[in-house]
Amino acid sequence: MKLVVKDMDIATGGPRIVTLNYQDAKLYDLHHHDRILITFGNKRTMAIVDIGESSKAVPPGKIGMFEEVLYDLQVRGGGVVTIALAEKPESVRYIKQKLDGKQLTCHEICVIVQDIIEGRLSDIELTYYVAANYAFGMSDKEIVALTEAMIATGRKLPKLAKIVVDKHCIGGVPGNRTSLGVVPILAAAGLMVPKTSSRSITSPAGTADSMEVLANVSFDRTKLLALLKKIHACMVWGGAVDLAPADDTIINVEHPLSIDAEGQLLASIMAKKGSVGATHVLIDIPVGPGTKVETMEHAQHLKKKFEELGHFLNIHVKVVVTNGREPIGNGIGPALEARDVMWILKNHPNQPLDLRRKIIQMAGILLEMTGKAKPGHGQVVAEDLVHTGKAYEKMWEIIKAQGAKIKKLDDIHFGACTWDYLAPKSGRVRDIQNASVAKIARVAGCPQDKGAGIYLYKHCGDAVQKGEKIFTLYTENKEKMVYAKKMLEQFDGFVIR
Amino acid sequence: MKLVVKDMDIATGGPRIVTLNYQDAKLYDLHHHDRILITFGNKRTMAIVDIGESSKAVPPGKIGMFEEVLYDLQVRGGGVVTIALAEKPESVRYIKQKLDGKQLTCHEICVIVQDIIEGRLSDIELTYYVAANYAFGMSDKEIVALTEAMIATGRKLPKLAKIVVDKHCIGGVPGNRTSLGVVPILAAAGLMVPKTSSRSITSPAGTADSMEVLANVSFDRTKLLALLKKIHACMVWGGAVDLAPADDTIINVEHPLSIDAEGQLLASIMAKKGSVGATHVLIDIPVGPGTKVETMEHAQHLKKKFEELGHFLNIHVKVVVTNGREPIGNGIGPALEARDVMWILKNHPNQPLDLRRKIIQMAGILLEMTGKAKPGHGQVVAEDLVHTGKAYEKMWEIIKAQGAKIKKLDDIHFGACTWDYLAPKSGRVRDIQNASVAKIARVAGCPQDKGAGIYLYKHCGDAVQKGEKIFTLYTENKEKMVYAKKMLEQFDGFVIR
Repeated sequence: MKLVVKDMDIATGGPRIVTLNYQDAKLYDLHHHDRILITFGNKRTMAIVDIGESSKAVPPGKIGMFEEVLYDLQVRGGGVVTIALAEKPESVRYIKQKLDGKQLTCHEICVIVQDIIEGRLSDIELTYYVAANYAFGMSDKEIVALTEAMIATGRKLPKLAKIVVDKHCIGGVPGNRTSLGVVPILAAAGLMVPKTSSRSITSPAGTADSMEVLANVSFDRTKLLALLKKIHACMVWGGAVDLAPADDTIINVEHPLSIDAEGQLLASIMAKKGSVGATHVLIDIPVGPGTKVETMEHAQHLKKKFEELGHFLNIHVKVVVTNGREPIGNGIGPALEARDVMWILKNHPNQPLDLRRKIIQMAGILLEMTGKAKPGHGQVVAEDLVHTGKAYEKMWEIIKAQGAKIKKLDDIHFGACTWDYLAPKSGRVRDIQNASVAKIARVAGCPQDKGAGIYLYKHCGDAVQKGEKIFTLYTENKEKMVYAKKMLEQFDGFVIR
Repeated sequence: MKLVVKDMDIATGGPRIVTLNYQDAKLYDLHHHDRILITFGNKRTMAIVDIGESSKAVPPGKIGMFEEVLYDLQVRGGGVVTIALAEKPESVRYIKQKLDGKQLTCHEICVIVQDIIEGRLSDIELTYYVAANYAFGMSDKEIVALTEAMIATGRKLPKLAKIVVDKHCIGGVPGNRTSLGVVPILAAAGLMVPKTSSRSITSPAGTADSMEVLANVSFDRTKLLALLKKIHACMVWGGAVDLAPADDTIINVEHPLSIDAEGQLLASIMAKKGSVGATHVLIDIPVGPGTKVETMEHAQHLKKKFEELGHFLNIHVKVVVTNGREPIGNGIGPALEARDVMWILKNHPNQPLDLRRKIIQMAGILLEMTGKAKPGHGQVVAEDLVHTGKAYEKMWEIIKAQGAKIKKLDDIHFGACTWDYLAPKSGRVRDIQNASVAKIARVAGCPQDKGAGIYLYKHCGDAVQKGEKIFTLYTENKEKMVYAKKMLEQFDGFVIR
């Protein structure tokens, strides 16, 4: 059956999809979501059928193609292609089995992940897979298989060193910019630290967002490897490096229902670590209201799971459960958080001591794990690296190697509009709600507006006088300030009693 | 935030979707699958955000709209619209709860179905709902609520009569064209029988496909009501009448994984019956290898479920479990099946006796259920209505009222190419496989090619001589015959021993 190509001028961002007119679909007995094999010259590809009712979009005799399919076939609008009915990919059968409550084998999970990567599954089929994993949970074997398949289908970094360290925090606590401080300390101790991270999706800032205030964070694979060869450390955005790309596709499908399936979470994090060749990994699980993990039981359960998964993957994993009941540090937002960390590394009097303690603690654990400090001496070594200025010096080395955006600390730009939130009454700060504070910061423009955010003057337990400054709000322009102030009218993030 | 409309020239067939350039999405902090409220003049609608990477499809400053959204807003390409972030519909939260294993309330299910109808849910969200129902099952209360919600969100027919009868067969058995014979018998007995059915998706023919050989089957609501007022019976395609339309949307999402969730199946069938105002319903569950229900236990379980659901909906439901181990009747395919039924109603010597027995049995049960026959006398009354020619006369009345396509029985058109399949050896027919026979008929062109199909000369238990005709294959053209004959080389549908 021959059809004439119509260029639909749209990319699907993954799945291979073509649109047929319903009359042709009827003629060839094709249904919505059937697979067809399309041939053009010596190129061929598989695509999922979408059926259009109107002749306006795709008239009979034509086949509407989205970018990915046009690219696969190297065909343009007007080209004539041949189509034939094709079987569904094997993985669809495995997904059905998982939805029937069966456990999948390593091979079956590999086939599913391979098909995800190659755009052979529709969003609907992928959603069934995610839903099945969520509804029935995943066995340890399944999680290991998923992690390994996600690593194998991406482009793993070559072996960088005998010891490669990495850390990850399961977010939810505003201001908690620990990695930005831990990486230079570890690098100053001579460790290889290839830190890749995603940009923030739901919080005011992620490591990549804050680092982007100081230096470039987008590097392709070649440039990243050159960077690591030169200074043995980096803090870059992982999105440009094609590490475990299946993960992003799966997360896209989890997003609409805000699903956070445990097995998927574990595999997702560990696949990124495995992809950079990490040998020693520290995972931080902050526990508190409004964080991702709200109870100590859940945190302990996840801790055990991470350690088991590390064991199977031959990665040394340590998990610390930390206090996540209120924001950490004073700055919230990419630029404000970057300055906090720089102040800590510089031993500046304005440094937030809670964030400093946490950075020293985390760095200390990794120094002990990797033998750079004797057991029980990790924090002392870390403290020394900061105190002597070695970590600060290393940080500037990294910033310069990544293409510095600032020359000195004062160059950091903050939102031009500021406004002080004053205590509505006297008392003591009993509670600061992570979610409410994060929301205000996002409304103020974070993380897109790097200089936007909140600078806190008070933490839990502090005494306040009526009318005293609680925090300063920063926005890039007046409109956002108006909007943020409106939101603040219903603000319940600070509980003073 | 104002954007200029770009007409994407595509219909999604349901969900309201718009495409934004990734730069605008970033600017407004919008993510894939976020909801936005779009305003144009005094019109407004909610849509789901899709993010395009290339400026080719949707450049910054533009908003790509699909047909449904253009229609809602009555806007054209070039129009300027205002967008604002909107909350996700309530139903998304309920779907998440179901995926967490909770039971949903009537109200929650109503909200979900309403959102399905109005295109407020993306395919991914809808898939989570179907997956959750499948994985955790549905309680009786949930099934009743889903059925009632599907009826309420469609256009129920007005009350047609005190007694309104309907029947349904859970398919899988080729040739089993029972309804086509039962409807005229019941109508001849004076009953109101508004039979709507879907066109076949996976079998060689459905009631609507076969009826379409004899008369028109596409009627809008007004014409359908006029028809029923006139002759108290019909056999039409349900697709044009907007009965319980949520069902079709849900089935679209079940199709890619061939999911047949029990609760969905029950609700789907009973919603269609409830929508025509049926008071007495007969459900036929054929059991055999290759049918939808393969074991007697499963059939008995479904029988109980249907009867319970009928009780809750205040519909008299009777379920018969029938023998589905081999094709019923001789003709398989729209035209061949239509002729079989016409022969039965005409008491023609060529009539297939197995199908006649089944038609009389089914009609008899409904005559007893509705008081048109005394208990135990249904089959006698039905037999009499056929024997005296009253049912045949009624059938012609219905055909004429629906716009006859034939004037006499001989006008039925069959495929021009025929080929006889001969017994490869002598012996007795031990088995005829439904699925293999159906596949050959579909490859021959069914159900699109009305005259294509198979005419059987032998059934299970019949003795055959080597070289004797087993069946005749009909196709509309030579190409399909070549293709079907190729398939027959591996045919294992007839077991002779």
